[in-house]
Amino acid sequence: MGGDRAPSVVVEAALEMAGASEIVLVGPRAAMMQSMPAGRQAPTRLTLYDAPDAVPMGEQPAVSLRHRPHSSIAVGMGLLREGKAEAFVSAGNTGAVVAFALTRLGRLPGVHRPALATPFPTKDGACLLLDVGATADARPAYLLQYAQMGAAYAQHVLGVTHPRVGLLNIGSEPGKGSQLAREAYPLLEKSALDFVGNVEGNELPRGSADVVVTDGFTGNMALKIAEGAAETLVTELRALLLSKFHYKLAAAVLRPAFRSLARRLDYAEYGGAALLGVRGIVIIAHGRSNPRAIQNAVAVAERAAGSGLLERIAHACEGEERPVRDRRPEAHARRANHE
Amino acid sequence: MGGDRAPSVVVEAALEMAGASEIVLVGPRAAMMQSMPAGRQAPTRLTLYDAPDAVPMGEQPAVSLRHRPHSSIAVGMGLLREGKAEAFVSAGNTGAVVAFALTRLGRLPGVHRPALATPFPTKDGACLLLDVGATADARPAYLLQYAQMGAAYAQHVLGVTHPRVGLLNIGSEPGKGSQLAREAYPLLEKSALDFVGNVEGNELPRGSADVVVTDGFTGNMALKIAEGAAETLVTELRALLLSKFHYKLAAAVLRPAFRSLARRLDYAEYGGAALLGVRGIVIIAHGRSNPRAIQNAVAVAERAAGSGLLERIAHACEGEERPVRDRRPEAHARRANHE
Repeated sequence: MGGDRAPSVVVEAALEMAGASEIVLVGPRAAMMQSMPAGRQAPTRLTLYDAPDAVPMGEQPAVSLRHRPHSSIAVGMGLLREGKAEAFVSAGNTGAVVAFALTRLGRLPGVHRPALATPFPTKDGACLLLDVGATADARPAYLLQYAQMGAAYAQHVLGVTHPRVGLLNIGSEPGKGSQLAREAYPLLEKSALDFVGNVEGNELPRGSADVVVTDGFTGNMALKIAEGAAETLVTELRALLLSKFHYKLAAAVLRPAFRSLARRLDYAEYGGAALLGVRGIVIIAHGRSNPRAIQNAVAVAERAAGSGLLERIAHACEGEERPVRDRRPEAHARRANHE
Repeated sequence: MGGDRAPSVVVEAALEMAGASEIVLVGPRAAMMQSMPAGRQAPTRLTLYDAPDAVPMGEQPAVSLRHRPHSSIAVGMGLLREGKAEAFVSAGNTGAVVAFALTRLGRLPGVHRPALATPFPTKDGACLLLDVGATADARPAYLLQYAQMGAAYAQHVLGVTHPRVGLLNIGSEPGKGSQLAREAYPLLEKSALDFVGNVEGNELPRGSADVVVTDGFTGNMALKIAEGAAETLVTELRALLLSKFHYKLAAAVLRPAFRSLARRLDYAEYGGAALLGVRGIVIIAHGRSNPRAIQNAVAVAERAAGSGLLERIAHACEGEERPVRDRRPEAHARRANHE
């Protein structure tokens, strides 16, 4: 239970799907009950699970971790951990989902860091971009694992038979880019992956790779820059089209075309972001999700659970040594002990 | 002399401006002469300066540095260094311009690293984004200097009376982002600049800051992602509008609106990118520049030269200590000796 329009949007999606899927709705019971359409019988495959607290959208993950043990995110992760749910979907605070996933579920064996993987629209569909913000700073070895996890997800959940993997970079040649990108390149090249080389930002929408890896800072930035650029263009176009009477008439004729374009850019069309590398299937839908987006995210979560994704990721990452020098070795050791 | 459509575009721009400005055209003499309109008298304030070689657009800077001492970029930097020109404008290979500027001109005293500053379109105009690729990896102290250099440029060349400075980041709160961003934040906050805090990628077009700083990798990525997103949207819109006959009719009515939108996104409207921190005024126009873009870049270069920009940047950065730990101290010492 979360997102800008929770709980009504989530309840609506759940009611829609509860026939075909087994849904556990986690959130404040009273609010969930209130969102149920009056007089409608709750489907038998829909369970409500009370979580009296909620994580506000802007809250810092560290604050949520400390003060929200009864939030829908914390409680949902607990169900996942105890095997009472096979996958967890949230449209709530991304930072809190990542933080609770790390502390409640922990990382899969051999995984350096979790990564958030999201579909980035391309001309023919979408490529999987990761990390888009689970881990701000990365090392070359992390990027290699992001590629391995992303390729496993693309193949077994998104149905890409032979995922081509690219490295997001600011030049096309191997020696280009930041130190991180320059050092990750040979690791990707030596790996068993189908590595297609560097992918520049303006190339991303051309779909020359199925999986594109970068550090969480750059990936999150890329996503937001693209979002901002598209929004600006649409806003300006709309203002222009409303600026003259005969424009308005012509724009009315074009409405179906504009709508079809908007649909291409719509988050609801995509299945949400997957948090890869943790011991559980965790899908994060966009905060502005409509019922359709939630349903798509649940469908992706079901496919992931059915595909044995966790074993496949663990397998892809095994044999990978943990990085020798780790910035906060104590912190990681401590966290590992808690799990 | 450079860019995808050199020399004709550059010659055309130069002929247009040579009345009001004193222009030295640097490039292969024969090619420049050929581009001159037949029978037209060359203006008296236009000088041709022969540089027989040219740097290809895709060439690696290291290769250009070694093998292109007679390229228009190398020769032009020489003129700047010898005081035979007050500013240098190029639409050529950005990497080569940066490399030759560093080796031929060197850095201004006190400057850690040069930064490339470019206008990023916002709803009310543009904000100055830097670094967009002069230096791939940055340190917190560099970002502070980028802010100081960018603010000086915004104030004295772009005419922004009180430039508001932002830090490009993936969250709005101070503690967010990569290690670099988290460490740069307090430096900016303590500085004499009008620091407005973090600016997220999707906020960039909203114009909440006049100068936005980031490392060269992220800045270059941001620029290319925005370019790619806008291009994709325009391409898809065009395809949609041509897909049905009655769409085509309506689209014809809207053509002036579309054109006005395209102009907003057009590089030609902006004055090109400024390479800040080197001992000379260096403006880089987009490789796809038309004569108008070249003219705008020359106008910016003249304003920069007339504003005493170099002294202002040196002043803004003085007192700043060089970073204590430097990854390649020998390389920098060597470069400094050459200058």
